[in-house]
Amino acid sequence: MSGKKYIFELEIAVRDYEVDVEGIVNNANYLHYLEHTRHEFCRMAGMSFRDMHARGIDPVLSKITVEYKSPLRSGDVMVSKLDIARRGPLFVFHQDIYKKDGTPVVFSKVSVATLENGRLSRGDVLADAFRKYIGE
Amino acid sequence: MSGKKYIFELEIAVRDYEVDVEGIVNNANYLHYLEHTRHEFCRMAGMSFRDMHARGIDPVLSKITVEYKSPLRSGDVMVSKLDIARRGPLFVFHQDIYKKDGTPVVFSKVSVATLENGRLSRGDVLADAFRKYIGE
Amino acid sequence: MSGKKYIFELEIAVRDYEVDVEGIVNNANYLHYLEHTRHEFCRMAGMSFRDMHARGIDPVLSKITVEYKSPLRSGDVMVSKLDIARRGPLFVFHQDIYKKDGTPVVFSKVSVATLENGRLSRGDVLADAFRKYIGE
Amino acid sequence: MSGKKYIFELEIAVRDYEVDVEGIVNNANYLHYLEHTRHEFCRMAGMSFRDMHARGIDPVLSKITVEYKSPLRSGDVMVSKLDIARRGPLFVFHQDIYKKDGTPVVFSKVSVATLENGRLSRGDVLADAFRKYIGE
Repeated sequence: MSGKKYIFELEIAVRDYEVDVEGIVNNANYLHYLEHTRHEFCRMAGMSFRDMHARGIDPVLSKITVEYKSPLRSGDVMVSKLDIARRGPLFVFHQDIYKKDGTPVVFSKVSVATLENGRLSRGDVLADAFRKYIGE
Repeated sequence: MSGKKYIFELEIAVRDYEVDVEGIVNNANYLHYLEHTRHEFCRMAGMSFRDMHARGIDPVLSKITVEYKSPLRSGDVMVSKLDIARRGPLFVFHQDIYKKDGTPVVFSKVSVATLENGRLSRGDVLADAFRKYIGE
Repeated sequence: MSGKKYIFELEIAVRDYEVDVEGIVNNANYLHYLEHTRHEFCRMAGMSFRDMHARGIDPVLSKITVEYKSPLRSGDVMVSKLDIARRGPLFVFHQDIYKKDGTPVVFSKVSVATLENGRLSRGDVLADAFRKYIGE
Repeated sequence: MSGKKYIFELEIAVRDYEVDVEGIVNNANYLHYLEHTRHEFCRMAGMSFRDMHARGIDPVLSKITVEYKSPLRSGDVMVSKLDIARRGPLFVFHQDIYKKDGTPVVFSKVSVATLENGRLSRGDVLADAFRKYIGE
């Protein structure tokens, strides 16, 4: 965690159906945790996905990189942390998940583009909503 | 598809529950498609995950990078293609998904480590099974 | 299978991520298999969910009963079979899943109501589409 | 809610990836909510599924009935409530989900058998653990 900065965090408990036959959370579920964290961040910032969708704004993933550091198991509670930056038309989320004792679980970088009425946009509406959270 | 080489491919139909409120397949489901493709490749190569697990061998993801090129929707059928290489103790899968008309859907690179009885291994058992498929 | 009549069937292979730590397919995934079977039936009958949704018609579940007979495991292929009847404003699907050797996996009964533009309807549009398949 | 008795309840927030193209939570996800509620109840009662599995005890679903009363949407928080009874070798869970304002979402009845070392058992180990919670 040395020196990393986060602007939002969320505790999430592992649900047993997310664990596969190896006894560890299936790799795809981390994308669910990361998405849920972004959406809760957006809601906190005043722009829920439901509201955005109703306004014709649909964020879509452009690229995601996930490093798997150590697995989560049944009964674990994670802390999912997020930072956000803007890179041209993209929002770049740095999202890391830790166990409650600080053990790194996944480190990820998520690039998100914004569709407005189905077309790629510069993302100005969201940038405005996220203004006070966006690092430079 | 220019010049990319694949050693295995699998057709998969989108299931409607994989589509979210934006009308496109949710980002995490692509990891399901990619995993299913790797597992079917392993089965074809004579090493199902069920057999591996029974022998104490558990492949685990080390890192994944996914570029989302164009979304899949309800009713779409994809072709999920795979190539495999060995990089030290890791197996690196290049896995790309296309629509049936050749439109790129996702390009991904998946690095997999191998646990034997819970400890990281050099992956020799799998390398042996995959010998004729592994590019250099 | 003694005497049961089905009008549609679909083969589905278990995907390993659908299997949980007990080594068997998680109970919720059977609802995914059943839904996918209904949707493929509808598509075959000329009414995909995508088309229905575009026309303002949204089938919604009213009630489901599932008897779990024997579990599916990694590597299994199932045959998912369906019959349909009409009971007042509801469509009632009898949906059973078998292993390829005929072993029963689940027996289910699924009651579906139809929303038209968000309001409960008598389902006449669908009944018309399903006319030749509906048993009395 | 008139007169129904529950011995355990859990608040769960809808995650946006659980919502499908109709804008409502997909039917299978309710089985996930119900399972998660049972498992949290078991954990509270001192018998986590992880512990049970380690001791060779695997509860498996025998039958489930779900009545869908009103749909959950993005942003909703549910209260998932549970009661438990014993019927011969089965544990029967009455599990209902409400919105926070008391609107019924689903009513369900879940029958669970217990495998010990892969064979059906009378469930005495669990009955002992659940003694003070089981209604007659």
